[in-house]
Amino acid sequence: MSDYKPFEPLVKRIKEDGKCLPGGILKVDSFINHQIDPTLLQSMSIEFVRRFASVEINKILTIEASGIAPAVMVGFLLNVPVVFAKKKKPSTMADMLVTEVFSFTKNKSYSVCCSKEYLKEGDKVLFIDDFLANGNAAKGIIDLVNQAGATLSGMGFLVEKSFQHGGDFLRAQNFPVESLAIIGSLDDCKITFKD
Amino acid sequence: MSDYKPFEPLVKRIKEDGKCLPGGILKVDSFINHQIDPTLLQSMSIEFVRRFASVEINKILTIEASGIAPAVMVGFLLNVPVVFAKKKKPSTMADMLVTEVFSFTKNKSYSVCCSKEYLKEGDKVLFIDDFLANGNAAKGIIDLVNQAGATLSGMGFLVEKSFQHGGDFLRAQNFPVESLAIIGSLDDCKITFKD
Repeated sequence: MSDYKPFEPLVKRIKEDGKCLPGGILKVDSFINHQIDPTLLQSMSIEFVRRFASVEINKILTIEASGIAPAVMVGFLLNVPVVFAKKKKPSTMADMLVTEVFSFTKNKSYSVCCSKEYLKEGDKVLFIDDFLANGNAAKGIIDLVNQAGATLSGMGFLVEKSFQHGGDFLRAQNFPVESLAIIGSLDDCKITFKD
Repeated sequence: MSDYKPFEPLVKRIKEDGKCLPGGILKVDSFINHQIDPTLLQSMSIEFVRRFASVEINKILTIEASGIAPAVMVGFLLNVPVVFAKKKKPSTMADMLVTEVFSFTKNKSYSVCCSKEYLKEGDKVLFIDDFLANGNAAKGIIDLVNQAGATLSGMGFLVEKSFQHGGDFLRAQNFPVESLAIIGSLDDCKITFKD
């Protein structure tokens, strides 16, 4: 299930409304990160359900904040709980799984954590996030899932930036990765899609 | 529409799975803040649609991160865009509306901001959030909506802590507030609902 098939409604929307900023930044604020279009969100979420139809899933996992919207919609469609891994350890939580994620954008590490109550041995987890770039957040999620003794049934991303190679790493390890749109290059502030 | 009617499925769930921690903290991690139950989320979102049936709404507004799940579901049901106000100003955004919100929990102020592209004059906004406590986040949202020249059609909260009086303030100003469950007291680590 890892051959790339572009999800045309998203590709079309990125072509129409996506903006490229200097430094390899793709701005999709108007329909993913800052404002969500409910029709597009629904169609993307249904596409994830279709692409992961052959695997067992009893839980959706995402990282707050911008993964929450697609994760919630996929969880709603599959009628399974949605767990938000948190970017800092809440004071009210004991018994956490914790991992460190290095952010190239911010040039520092941050903790990602999840209560042991909500990620457990035997869970079959679909990880959903908005972006796959260098894959560091995804690696953190793999670590959390391993710590819990759970299984990663799939990893679904709205947008992958293949030139940052996180997808290469995950596919080389045989993780079942599905990206709805893959950007091959943002050179010269031009959005070029992977074929 | 501001007489309090408890939404029984949520009240029941808080009674079953909510936990009270010292310092007036209500922990609803297992079904709202850290893990979302999709069936409960759907029923709560439909209840908001019902309660705000008589007002015009062309946009849902929330604050990242824990308001996103109910906001996305209400936006999906009403088929209107969902805008996430952000807790820090992203480096990639110009032309922002900004307000300051004081957090009693953290004893410091933080910025809440929203692009002028997504909150505009003429917008009829339903604000959705998980908690209403002292109301400072809600006041920040009112400021953003006013700055934009938009109208607040309604404010919907999953859980209100009436002993922190944010709801009193908003209702005294005639804002259309709907809370699905109202906690009257957490004294002695006991969850007491408002009648």
